[in-house]
Amino acid sequence: MAIALGEARAAAEAGEVPVGAVVVRDGRELARGANRSIRDRDPSAHAEVVAIRGAAAKLGNHRTGGTIYVTLEPCLMCMGAMVQARIDRLVFAARDPKAGAARSLYQVAGDKRLNHRFPVEEGPLAEAASSLLSDFFRSRRG
Amino acid sequence: MAIALGEARAAAEAGEVPVGAVVVRDGRELARGANRSIRDRDPSAHAEVVAIRGAAAKLGNHRTGGTIYVTLEPCLMCMGAMVQARIDRLVFAARDPKAGAARSLYQVAGDKRLNHRFPVEEGPLAEAASSLLSDFFRSRRG
Repeated sequence: MAIALGEARAAAEAGEVPVGAVVVRDGRELARGANRSIRDRDPSAHAEVVAIRGAAAKLGNHRTGGTIYVTLEPCLMCMGAMVQARIDRLVFAARDPKAGAARSLYQVAGDKRLNHRFPVEEGPLAEAASSLLSDFFRSRRG
Repeated sequence: MAIALGEARAAAEAGEVPVGAVVVRDGRELARGANRSIRDRDPSAHAEVVAIRGAAAKLGNHRTGGTIYVTLEPCLMCMGAMVQARIDRLVFAARDPKAGAARSLYQVAGDKRLNHRFPVEEGPLAEAASSLLSDFFRSRRG
């Protein structure tokens, strides 16, 4: 999660909403990603999707599996991407009560109607991740 | 929708689940896309995301707006990508009772808790789109 938080800080410096993610499998990092929606002009370029795409490219397989660490509770798009990639486990830092689809608004990972389910944990470095977000939005409003 | 169906046929020929999409805005086509998950080794490369990414690149803006035509009811990831891109309207051909997130399992586009909502229509060329899918899966099982 410390690596994901580093990615989130880098996103903030680039003027992007500060969220970072890392995909780990068999004890090694496959790929990391920062939110790049604005600079890449790509609405799908959330940190999670960037990291999952990197992991899939590295493995040469669109099914990556592995654990994904994210600094903010993922949105619907990112939870859906985790289902597509057959992610084995999600760990996120801070909750997103407005758009979170792992716990807050939806509980996608536990939906028995979908063809893939995975456990979700939350909490590590939550305070640091959420301070980074609130500082970012405060500085933009200022 | 005829253009989206052409993309779906091209996906089938490439060994991909045959789904196609087009993003249209102000009466002109911005981008089209076919499902490319396997060949691109990218779990996010569903037809809808491919078309939305293309539209965003063309407009130079991650908020594309516009109408998206898709041959199959979109999954959670793709509905989430439409929220991110601020799509104005979704038209899909065939329902997907196992993973559809526009009508079947979820109704994402009408969720008042999310920060963007848009109308959904279904039905045009539904029979052609669903025959293409069932032929594809039948030939893979055979």
